[in-house]
Amino acid sequence: MAITVVGSVAYDTIETPAGKRERCLGGAATYFSLAASYFTDVRVIAVVGEDFGKRQEAIFQARNIDTRGIEHTVGKSFFWEGSYLENLNEAKTHITDLNVFASFNPKIPDAYRDSEFLFLANIDPVLQRRVREQMPNAKLVAGDTMNYWIKDHRPALLEVLKSLDILLINDTETKMLAGNNNLVQAARAVMALGPKALVVKHGEYGATLFHCATPKGESARRTFRAPAMPMEEVVDPTGAGDSFAGGFFGYLASQPEQSPAVFRSAMFYGSVMGSFACERFGTERMQKLTRPEIDERFNLFRELTHLA
Amino acid sequence: MAITVVGSVAYDTIETPAGKRERCLGGAATYFSLAASYFTDVRVIAVVGEDFGKRQEAIFQARNIDTRGIEHTVGKSFFWEGSYLENLNEAKTHITDLNVFASFNPKIPDAYRDSEFLFLANIDPVLQRRVREQMPNAKLVAGDTMNYWIKDHRPALLEVLKSLDILLINDTETKMLAGNNNLVQAARAVMALGPKALVVKHGEYGATLFHCATPKGESARRTFRAPAMPMEEVVDPTGAGDSFAGGFFGYLASQPEQSPAVFRSAMFYGSVMGSFACERFGTERMQKLTRPEIDERFNLFRELTHLA
Repeated sequence: MAITVVGSVAYDTIETPAGKRERCLGGAATYFSLAASYFTDVRVIAVVGEDFGKRQEAIFQARNIDTRGIEHTVGKSFFWEGSYLENLNEAKTHITDLNVFASFNPKIPDAYRDSEFLFLANIDPVLQRRVREQMPNAKLVAGDTMNYWIKDHRPALLEVLKSLDILLINDTETKMLAGNNNLVQAARAVMALGPKALVVKHGEYGATLFHCATPKGESARRTFRAPAMPMEEVVDPTGAGDSFAGGFFGYLASQPEQSPAVFRSAMFYGSVMGSFACERFGTERMQKLTRPEIDERFNLFRELTHLA
Repeated sequence: MAITVVGSVAYDTIETPAGKRERCLGGAATYFSLAASYFTDVRVIAVVGEDFGKRQEAIFQARNIDTRGIEHTVGKSFFWEGSYLENLNEAKTHITDLNVFASFNPKIPDAYRDSEFLFLANIDPVLQRRVREQMPNAKLVAGDTMNYWIKDHRPALLEVLKSLDILLINDTETKMLAGNNNLVQAARAVMALGPKALVVKHGEYGATLFHCATPKGESARRTFRAPAMPMEEVVDPTGAGDSFAGGFFGYLASQPEQSPAVFRSAMFYGSVMGSFACERFGTERMQKLTRPEIDERFNLFRELTHLA
């Protein structure tokens, strides 16, 4: 089943202990759609400026990603510059230029409207809601957000959360959103705001899936933990979370039904795609994977965690 | 097979968000031996003062732990006071009174000398080494240490590491010992110092087992990650790491051979015992478990991580 994703398509300048890259193609919707494209059809909604040309377009086309929803407008594309010199787990942002993104008003091509899967990547919750409302037929809706929206745009975010089936955020965001420092209690509080499932990403420690149907005291029996892969070298962690989301939601969308077993495998595919994303700068690795490589790593994650 | 453990038997005053307890029985050797006692015979080497009486002795005896190696001397037992009010993952130490521990010179009862398994809990590496040398027949030796010894007693610690089969430490200690911020590279460097296997404890994120026989680039294929259990309430994390070690090493010692599959199960039993330890203050939970309870939680850890 096809996924429609709305989010940023951007240029990133990134510095890590492994080196520096100027203006690589980036953005949450870019990482998400590349990762998800190994599992299912993907359609992107975003806005770019005049600096987005045929070469960038070709990266999407090579993965058969539908770019008819990428609006081209006057000005420059969203630009982000950051570094991970001291801590590979957390980017230090140097520059955020919203550029054409500042006046983004997502338009949904008619050809996208039958998408049964919708992913609202990390953008202004007002825009997330606007897209959600224009896709009433989506049968499974997942989304991401970040500390900025949680802290300063809470009312708009709470509106979006009501319409989400699955929220994917990290530990800090979960605790901040709930105002509770215990992860299990915080997860329960976040799911009371709307999402039926919550995926908490732990960076190098993997991710945990919580279900809102879990009765109190039964959390351990209903949750699922996927590992991250111990990596000898993290070249660039940019986009790892979005690639996780793409692998997770892409796999879900590729299956005839979204059973608990399918959710578990989806968590593994999320971790797999997140691990690949870190192996090269920007989207380099995410552009040139093969499904056998992905499944080989899936099996490696199984060996890493399974008793026999 | 019997385990001999050397380490602290102490009194702890502990404050957590769940409350405060004055002078509970604590110490690394106490938690370790209680946890290991559910799997195999345990023999303790430690020193206590006149404040250690029949009531404390009874806690060990109720678990059939051999206390002939606990030396009683004039003075007070080791005392620690700490709190976890701001951060349940890291204790804030208020008081450390070594008391009788300051002049501890471990003596090994003859009855202990046939122990094939030896655990050197977190004490002065000079003492760890002295015990190791007096137990030449031990076929599997594991140990723990902490930032203080890594930082200020490195030469003595390096001597101990040479004689260890398995080292159990946390992420920070691993990186500090190796002088390397990448966990996989740090693990490789630590194993080059002696230990054939390294268990890195990640607190609420579980633990990773590394083997020194792993060729470079193959780390993911040879490592194993056990989860920690998502807990709705952590009453008191004191002793969770020592209880992990007791479950891990106790299970290893209980098996006819220490195959890779047995190591994997041992990692799970370690996580299981660590999770129980956090459920009550001090050693309360560790004193009154049953093997069926332990195995039920083992199965829950399996459900938490296994695809099917």
